Amino acid sequence: MKTVEQQILAGDQQAIARLITAVENNSPVAIDVMRSLHRHTGHAHIIGVTGVMGGGKSSLIYKLSSVMRKKGLKIGIIAIDPTSPFTGGALLGDRIRMGELSDDPDVFIRSMGTRGMLGGLSGAVYDVIEILDAAGKDVILIETVGVGQAEVDIVKVADTTIVLLVPGLGDSIQTIKAGLMEIADIFVVNKADKPGADQTVAELESFLDVYAPTVSQRKPVIVSTSVKENMGFEDLHEQIQLHYMFLQKNEKVVEKRKIRYEVVLVEIIRKRLMGLIYDQKRLTQTVDQLVSDVVQRKLDPYTAADTIFSSLIK
Amino acid sequence: MKTVEQQILAGDQQAIARLITAVENNSPVAIDVMRSLHRHTGHAHIIGVTGVMGGGKSSLIYKLSSVMRKKGLKIGIIAIDPTSPFTGGALLGDRIRMGELSDDPDVFIRSMGTRGMLGGLSGAVYDVIEILDAAGKDVILIETVGVGQAEVDIVKVADTTIVLLVPGLGDSIQTIKAGLMEIADIFVVNKADKPGADQTVAELESFLDVYAPTVSQRKPVIVSTSVKENMGFEDLHEQIQLHYMFLQKNEKVVEKRKIRYEVVLVEIIRKRLMGLIYDQKRLTQTVDQLVSDVVQRKLDPYTAADTIFSSLIK
Repeated sequence: MKTVEQQILAGDQQAIARLITAVENNSPVAIDVMRSLHRHTGHAHIIGVTGVMGGGKSSLIYKLSSVMRKKGLKIGIIAIDPTSPFTGGALLGDRIRMGELSDDPDVFIRSMGTRGMLGGLSGAVYDVIEILDAAGKDVILIETVGVGQAEVDIVKVADTTIVLLVPGLGDSIQTIKAGLMEIADIFVVNKADKPGADQTVAELESFLDVYAPTVSQRKPVIVSTSVKENMGFEDLHEQIQLHYMFLQKNEKVVEKRKIRYEVVLVEIIRKRLMGLIYDQKRLTQTVDQLVSDVVQRKLDPYTAADTIFSSLIK
Repeated sequence: MKTVEQQILAGDQQAIARLITAVENNSPVAIDVMRSLHRHTGHAHIIGVTGVMGGGKSSLIYKLSSVMRKKGLKIGIIAIDPTSPFTGGALLGDRIRMGELSDDPDVFIRSMGTRGMLGGLSGAVYDVIEILDAAGKDVILIETVGVGQAEVDIVKVADTTIVLLVPGLGDSIQTIKAGLMEIADIFVVNKADKPGADQTVAELESFLDVYAPTVSQRKPVIVSTSVKENMGFEDLHEQIQLHYMFLQKNEKVVEKRKIRYEVVLVEIIRKRLMGLIYDQKRLTQTVDQLVSDVVQRKLDPYTAADTIFSSLIK
């Protein structure tokens, strides 16, 4: 009989799903499997897909996956968008359309919430990436909604970040500028069949003309796609590969992965420390008691924190 | 000369702004001020406003604030929405419209990002609430974008949570159900002048008929508003007060505040612990060295975390 590790390395979809659930539940056995899987990772190209809601991220991922599957690539998809059809958050029709992908034994799809008290990407996302990487996926696509912290987190995780825009959002570039513009390696103007698509591309181009890329140090490219007309996805796939080659040629993959594993490491430590806070055996006063004192103004939150801190830290 | 504490208690807007910045920068002096301010808090009614992008959250807050100001209430506004006009992320016109509020000495406006590695509400938000509360604000309005973690966080912070919907989003209730429906104490159907507003209200009503409120244990109310026709904001204010009275009558304010201060406490501890991780004097191996080993597959992230953990924890 195969060990869990062997099952994962063989790409067994059910074993992958079970291990993810076990890791999410902090199973110590699962953590031990994670320890041994790490040396089998480093192969997968991690691609973040983010952008405005209603921009068609899920459909784009679906179409892009089809192109990649035709080239024989094994795919993992992680959806961290509460409104994504992958997560079941949206319309039934969309979910059915994903059927073709979910029946493919070389495509693994997992939807995840933004769990944990302080949100952003759930810590378990990093474990899922490791598992899918070890399981031999060539590409891991991560879908996040393009607002708030997830957009900032995704760039720390992904080798290549795709930002999706759609024509006709009027002031799209204006409103989106704040966070999304800086993180894109590739801009996709989706729904390119719609009126205004050319204008959105033109606006983007003039934005990029005056823009010095801070994160990737490579001028982002713009790709137009249309799910309706099944257009642009081959081109998008090519641009994704070109970006990955750029990273590899310039040692930037290692740089990117250092950033990711720092996030991973800090997250593991954070999670453990948070566990300790609720470990009553370690504390002279429980969090609950301290909180009551804070609410009654017997104690301020900072002094309450001191109490916990001094019982935990060397 | 007044101490910083005295200035804050007197509601000095510049002192408030300075203290917030100092706390954001982890100034130890500022933290000491925070310690002494806590006993002066507990007065403010904390109101979260969340909902879909483009729903007009900022305009609603603007209108609601005008109603509250007319009743003599002192107001704090915290905007944690990257696309909010309060944060300067959106159109110039919106920013100008806020002018009337920002010139009012009894209205304090602060925009904040979702800082910190793991996002959601920035830890500094909790400090800003404490400061504004101590500074005598009667009402603190917190604007968050209604996706991802912020929506989940806000309900832990706010006494009253307002969820904004707009007509004509088609499947609005369908897509929004996942997270937002459960957290609302008050639903606002904004842009009630638009076609479809009645239908949205009717849909909401039938949703609420079959819905057992989990968080607030009180059936949410629905208020229709229109910024354009300056309609519904008096009604909204009344509903906000009724909800607060309900909380106070049922000892639920204390319950709510326990939840908030637990978040606050955990956040303070998290922040300090995260600081320790990067305190090289405490560690036998720096995070940077460990991350390099992880990237080179000499070490897995969990074992790297063990190393840091054992140098820090009792």
